[in-house]
Amino acid sequence: MTEIRILPLAGIPEVTDGDDVAALLVEAAGDGVLANDDVVVVAHKIVSKSEGRVRPAAEKEEMVASESARVLRRTAGGMWIGETRHGFVCANAGIDASNVPGDNILLLPVDPDLSARRIRSRIRHLTGADVAVIVSDTFGRAWRIGQTNVAIGVAGMDPFLDHRGEEDRSGMELGATNICIADELAGAAEMVMGKTLGIAAALIKGSPIRRGPGSAASIVRSPAEDLFR
Amino acid sequence: MTEIRILPLAGIPEVTDGDDVAALLVEAAGDGVLANDDVVVVAHKIVSKSEGRVRPAAEKEEMVASESARVLRRTAGGMWIGETRHGFVCANAGIDASNVPGDNILLLPVDPDLSARRIRSRIRHLTGADVAVIVSDTFGRAWRIGQTNVAIGVAGMDPFLDHRGEEDRSGMELGATNICIADELAGAAEMVMGKTLGIAAALIKGSPIRRGPGSAASIVRSPAEDLFR
Repeated sequence: MTEIRILPLAGIPEVTDGDDVAALLVEAAGDGVLANDDVVVVAHKIVSKSEGRVRPAAEKEEMVASESARVLRRTAGGMWIGETRHGFVCANAGIDASNVPGDNILLLPVDPDLSARRIRSRIRHLTGADVAVIVSDTFGRAWRIGQTNVAIGVAGMDPFLDHRGEEDRSGMELGATNICIADELAGAAEMVMGKTLGIAAALIKGSPIRRGPGSAASIVRSPAEDLFR
Repeated sequence: MTEIRILPLAGIPEVTDGDDVAALLVEAAGDGVLANDDVVVVAHKIVSKSEGRVRPAAEKEEMVASESARVLRRTAGGMWIGETRHGFVCANAGIDASNVPGDNILLLPVDPDLSARRIRSRIRHLTGADVAVIVSDTFGRAWRIGQTNVAIGVAGMDPFLDHRGEEDRSGMELGATNICIADELAGAAEMVMGKTLGIAAALIKGSPIRRGPGSAASIVRSPAEDLFR
């Protein structure tokens, strides 16, 4: 096993409706840097902006309601913890006001898996490189303080490394182990993206992903099987 | 911002009670590799083994009960989701049977923050390098399928990158953003550790941690403030 490298993709300008995010990522990476089996992690913000998912801040309450499938809890601070239409559990339906120009708010992409597939296909068209793409967002968790970045869109990789049925070094079956590597990649990428740096994407080389079709929708635990909704 | 590198620390032999984990980590890293501000991530398994936290498999049920502070849910498969005495929410009180020799089970360290502090201090003694140390374990999550590695012990760093009060690029305050970078580091390290590879530790260079005292105990959301226990 060799090392994994996480590189910031810096220098992406402010994105607006209709921009070609894949082309901006390719340009930020530089000539010949993107290679087969690399993972490109993109903050959903630039994806949402390129898809015109910007609304006036005055519509926030209405938008949180219309983007939510279900509210699970309300915090003392007036935040809604709920399920988005995609099934993601997060605060305020994933709607965000930071790093959005003007008095505006930003919604999640309508279908972040589709966004990831489009970006992946366009990167291949532009460079020939067969990369995987993750669209990421910053979510809080149950039981643990603080947020981490997780995958809300996935293309070109299995979001899991499923060890069930494999054996450990003692020959014991690895009972329940099914690692969500897409979330680990999104979290790792966050460390070079930051919140105040204005770096909206990262490139990860050397990760042990399994290639193939995959989606972030498959990470969502169905409410019927979820003990904590 | 430069790149982050995640390097496997391979070649650590099977650990038993009383072994000097820090010395094994230093040897696995090789001469002169550990440097100030590096993060050493250690799977709790070798820490627990070095601390004699091995019990006969026949005692599993009794041990899950005695290591649990509270049971939150029982799954259809007979797994307990509960709070450990440390406050961590995980399956079966963090007790594990994989990668343990013989017909044995492994308990979590009694005080994983103390374990991390000891390893950190011993690494400094052996090499002069002022590293941060994370003890990690593999936990499931609410709402999302699959597990990721998280920090259960922390030393020499703030487990959070707290952006609250800072401004984004538009001059907007970053309301709630408090990144749990210790969990992102633990998850990133998992990608070179794997479950079947037998690699029990990783070294991370270039991460944007803030140095200082810190603990994984501070990541635990107190039950009184937790909307999901």
